[in-house]
Amino acid sequence: EFTVDWDASAAEKGGFDYFMLKEIAEQPRAVADTLLGRIDAEGRLVLDEMRLSDQDLRDVDKIIVVACGTSYHAGLIAKYAIEHWAAIPCEVELASEFRYRDPILTRDTLVVVISQSGETMDTLMAVRHARGQRSKVLAICNVNGSTIPRESDAVVYTHAGPEVAVASTKAFLTQLVACYLVGLYLAQVRGVKFGDEVKEILDQLEQMPGKVEEVLSTVEPVRELARSLAGERCVLFLGRHVGFPVALEGALKLKELAYMHAEGFAAGELKHGPIALIEQDLPVVVMVPSPTGQRVIHDKIVSNIQEIRARGAKTIVIAEEGDEDVRPYADTIIRIPAVPTLLQPLVSTVPLQVFACELASAKGHDVDQPRNLAKSVTVE
Amino acid sequence: EFTVDWDASAAEKGGFDYFMLKEIAEQPRAVADTLLGRIDAEGRLVLDEMRLSDQDLRDVDKIIVVACGTSYHAGLIAKYAIEHWAAIPCEVELASEFRYRDPILTRDTLVVVISQSGETMDTLMAVRHARGQRSKVLAICNVNGSTIPRESDAVVYTHAGPEVAVASTKAFLTQLVACYLVGLYLAQVRGVKFGDEVKEILDQLEQMPGKVEEVLSTVEPVRELARSLAGERCVLFLGRHVGFPVALEGALKLKELAYMHAEGFAAGELKHGPIALIEQDLPVVVMVPSPTGQRVIHDKIVSNIQEIRARGAKTIVIAEEGDEDVRPYADTIIRIPAVPTLLQPLVSTVPLQVFACELASAKGHDVDQPRNLAKSVTVE
Repeated sequence: EFTVDWDASAAEKGGFDYFMLKEIAEQPRAVADTLLGRIDAEGRLVLDEMRLSDQDLRDVDKIIVVACGTSYHAGLIAKYAIEHWAAIPCEVELASEFRYRDPILTRDTLVVVISQSGETMDTLMAVRHARGQRSKVLAICNVNGSTIPRESDAVVYTHAGPEVAVASTKAFLTQLVACYLVGLYLAQVRGVKFGDEVKEILDQLEQMPGKVEEVLSTVEPVRELARSLAGERCVLFLGRHVGFPVALEGALKLKELAYMHAEGFAAGELKHGPIALIEQDLPVVVMVPSPTGQRVIHDKIVSNIQEIRARGAKTIVIAEEGDEDVRPYADTIIRIPAVPTLLQPLVSTVPLQVFACELASAKGHDVDQPRNLAKSVTVE
Repeated sequence: EFTVDWDASAAEKGGFDYFMLKEIAEQPRAVADTLLGRIDAEGRLVLDEMRLSDQDLRDVDKIIVVACGTSYHAGLIAKYAIEHWAAIPCEVELASEFRYRDPILTRDTLVVVISQSGETMDTLMAVRHARGQRSKVLAICNVNGSTIPRESDAVVYTHAGPEVAVASTKAFLTQLVACYLVGLYLAQVRGVKFGDEVKEILDQLEQMPGKVEEVLSTVEPVRELARSLAGERCVLFLGRHVGFPVALEGALKLKELAYMHAEGFAAGELKHGPIALIEQDLPVVVMVPSPTGQRVIHDKIVSNIQEIRARGAKTIVIAEEGDEDVRPYADTIIRIPAVPTLLQPLVSTVPLQVFACELASAKGHDVDQPRNLAKSVTVE
């Protein structure tokens, strides 16, 4: 409980109009800090607090990621990485649903919980429920010594630093990094990936702060675009694979800050309903995977863009540098650097954060304190 | 490829303005037909085509339900029933995502696919992918002899009869019935439920056509409500547990037919973002679970209703007969009959179908042929 005068507050914001803008700008550093010191003298991955033995982790036959809000979107992305790298089946569930649906948990289930504050009530109750069933719990949290890490068997701290804005940005990116580290750690311990393979992915991760910086340095057109859309009532977001949770996150940010109808869809679901929403000049943001990853997904997204544009949508396309296939159907192209397939959310989320922040501020909303929302949901 | 003149079309619609209304009205019969002949002389459940042995089904250690659109919502509800009754871990996935994410499948994975037409392309490709990995595939389809059932190891046909309207209604309710039957069948084969326990749930299911009839006979106020909201741009839907997929389905219907911002949320997620959308007079439809099921969930939903109403929402509450706890916070109450917890979607979905149909028709849209949509998505 404290108050600050305007000058102190401005100083705290480091010259930015909003904490959110400051925190968006801090992301390269936050990602780098979360990666710091993760390799020991033997070249093995190190997590922060590990009260589970390697054998415990080899025994794991199922992972359930449990989280709320933005952290849930990090969990959805974690699933792709964990299954791909560690080959362990992985489910993702909203904490508020997990607790009350009688989930099937055993001693060999690893429950991964994600919470910035470490105090999210539904997530904490999920931890207690899982441990009551003798399942193992690994927490990904930002606040050291908070309740959730204290009650968990293992912890990976995100080193995002304090996040003040209600809408999570740098916490989200560092949660992604932590999820990737957990996936790699499991792959390493179980022998599914060799040391050099783990090292190679870590090297790729270590290039990500620079890539995020690149995005930040080229984001001015996104601001202009956002301001030009301040009169819109609705924006849709489409993605596939790891781009689908990014679409959900982009939509959530716009809901939280701009109070707009913003909804994310799996692009493959378009024809099963959401395409009915497409009308003249409706802005639709599309996350395009790299053409060098799974070519077939890339091509399907390009054809989705073509379809919605034929029905009048204003297409805003987030695509890798050099991807020219999208050009004929894109009203606006936002370029992101080429990065490995699974890591794309670390760069593709950033323009969506800037977009939501700028659009909300153009609408005259207080970006740091959206109506009705609290930073941590410590009640049920 | 055929054309009918107006009179023939009216006759086909059996006196209803739209096929969709006719199909909504046919639901008690469709549910009853899907339940017909499911018990053999020894009192055991019978599915339609079962090319899997009891031992095959006892070996199953994981179920993945794969579907698109409305069928996906049936799958989300199936998860609650299958895990609760048969105690087998169950994931649910969009067909378009499942195919491209390298899912972990073994000989002991049962993939349950749901498709009204039996021709949905993404779902068919999921069948082929799963069988290529030697997983077992059980199909829930409405069209006899269609491609998906032909290529699957086992089939439960829904006996909904032909569904003409693009927006699925009776096919959805019968898919739910089929999912319940699959859950019970697995529970029986694996010895997790005794014969008399299975029989008891079947008896409850057999009362559902009458309950659906009850809802249909008291649905006039829902029509009036829908017409009164024809000028709205946005309606939100909230639910928990099996009410969460029902909220998603209610929102999808409104998107498909009325082209409105309609979005479904897990009520527990409200505070993690969506509550920022609540503003004066925003209609919010809330699915309330029975107070006799999990009391704690019921009470949490009541408190959610209170919160959103305090922020100005116009609350439209779908609650069991006799549930008086909701009264102080409900602007409108839509009553549904008391039914077992897991079966509530069979009755709670019906007012949402009527709501979407009436609202769209009040807006002047062709309810049977929404823009941009086809009945079966047989392309990728």
